Amino acid sequence: MSVIIAIDIGGTQLRVAVYPRTGTTPITIQRTATRGLEDGVIERLTSLIDAAWPKEPVAAISVAAPGPVNPYTGVIISTPNIPAWTHYPLAELLSKQYEVPAFLGNDANLATLGEWKFGAGQGHRDVLYLTISTGIGGGVISGDMLIEGSRGMATELGHVTVLPGGPVCSCGVPGHLEAVASGPAIARYVREQVATGRSSILRPGMELSARDVAEAANQGDELAKEAFVRAGGFIGQAVAEFLHIFNPSIVIFGGGVSLSGRLILDPIEESMKRNIMDRSYLEGLQIATALLGDDAGLLGALAQAHIRLSKAG
Amino acid sequence: MSVIIAIDIGGTQLRVAVYPRTGTTPITIQRTATRGLEDGVIERLTSLIDAAWPKEPVAAISVAAPGPVNPYTGVIISTPNIPAWTHYPLAELLSKQYEVPAFLGNDANLATLGEWKFGAGQGHRDVLYLTISTGIGGGVISGDMLIEGSRGMATELGHVTVLPGGPVCSCGVPGHLEAVASGPAIARYVREQVATGRSSILRPGMELSARDVAEAANQGDELAKEAFVRAGGFIGQAVAEFLHIFNPSIVIFGGGVSLSGRLILDPIEESMKRNIMDRSYLEGLQIATALLGDDAGLLGALAQAHIRLSKAG
Repeated sequence: MSVIIAIDIGGTQLRVAVYPRTGTTPITIQRTATRGLEDGVIERLTSLIDAAWPKEPVAAISVAAPGPVNPYTGVIISTPNIPAWTHYPLAELLSKQYEVPAFLGNDANLATLGEWKFGAGQGHRDVLYLTISTGIGGGVISGDMLIEGSRGMATELGHVTVLPGGPVCSCGVPGHLEAVASGPAIARYVREQVATGRSSILRPGMELSARDVAEAANQGDELAKEAFVRAGGFIGQAVAEFLHIFNPSIVIFGGGVSLSGRLILDPIEESMKRNIMDRSYLEGLQIATALLGDDAGLLGALAQAHIRLSKAG
Repeated sequence: MSVIIAIDIGGTQLRVAVYPRTGTTPITIQRTATRGLEDGVIERLTSLIDAAWPKEPVAAISVAAPGPVNPYTGVIISTPNIPAWTHYPLAELLSKQYEVPAFLGNDANLATLGEWKFGAGQGHRDVLYLTISTGIGGGVISGDMLIEGSRGMATELGHVTVLPGGPVCSCGVPGHLEAVASGPAIARYVREQVATGRSSILRPGMELSARDVAEAANQGDELAKEAFVRAGGFIGQAVAEFLHIFNPSIVIFGGGVSLSGRLILDPIEESMKRNIMDRSYLEGLQIATALLGDDAGLLGALAQAHIRLSKAG
């Protein structure tokens, strides 16, 4: 029985897992620090692959990487934290070195594939996945197919305008969802309000994360709760539009901020109802949280290998 | 050689065309007034089909209808101008009566299919089609597949928020693209500005259409030009987001307003550049106007029949 090697390129860790051709329990997982600003990332990665290399025949290597990547050519356009990997033909390099097919996909898109094949989205043909953490991203399955676009740059779901003229996004455009509802945006809103003298158990000048804000909200802090209501309002506005655009049968929320549970999900759902053009978009719609956690990238890469191998075969 | 019967359900006209199985030149086209508020729409339609019925064997009947329809079940959920056709199983009725497969699709989605297979979008795998007239709608081809969603309600592209708190849309939600950039919205903006005393060759109290505004703009009227710049700005903002979401290789503009040419296309393209998160989305992107005109529905229905028959066979 052949195996599949799945790789997750993370900002802090490189991970290599070997999966049986059918199954989601890894035979082995190897990891090492990415150290993306230093030389030798590719050597660290291939050492890890060598260490994990199984005795069984390898059907494919499949890689999940953040940042814009071209899934058709296997080239990383650019990836945060590894500046040397710019226009970097990773799939081709791995395929040549190991003499097996190698595939590359964007990590948010592959997390979507993973949740669809192995997680919260199983059995659905139309899935919207939205991940809310340091940034906001996501992916879409439509009619049993991953939406990738002409160059693999589709479903940048954090980069839709929800507040024209609002805070400038990491991408440079004002008012995007990511700029007003990501983890850092939630923390920044609280800091700004505290600085204007608003009463809160969170002190001015504190280093704050969205997790700190969630803890304060759970202790009853009104400003902290308001910060989640505000972010959830924007997220719900965007999700309502994604429903008009994709009409999915399930919405899956992933990422650190979604771990705040009802604090963020209640305002999201209220805002979705307010912004939906017709109630029929919400009838039977499932709202779920992601099930795969840190393994979403690896399992998404595994799902990608299954799909690409079945197309090739 | 068998033939395909394509039907376009319009607010004013019902049209039935017979096409050869391979080819886009109709053997015959029959039409009659819809008179959707009166009884007997289905009888008028079947009389038309009877009159058009060819001597060749019929492979399928394929219908384009406005309004939410379910392409999987062939049921019209509701359609403007024919109140009796609510939750109306049109495909099943036609299939039983004529003993051939019958298919149903949303007219904007089918116009997208038509432009992709036979019009401006030929050869592209990822197409964004936006039609701007009395309303704003559209459709998307992603990876050679029409996006339809779990119940066929996807790609309501006029129903994305571009001006939170802005004018209320036909659907009831404030600030949607359709509410600020459709033909009637362009005319309303001019009327409102004239009413506040703005100088224009367009007079207060006139019955105005977007076409009148286009004529005034072409005569140099500053307010009329401004109305197109304003609408184009909103359209470009929405299209930039659709590029982030779908990453198409071509954008096709259809509908009456797109006939205004550079008056509307220049501001759209300027706004797209201003709102795009990364120039790479615009590199190599084609901007085109629709080629099929009034035949988009019929040819889209024809394309739908080709696709459904090839899946079935």
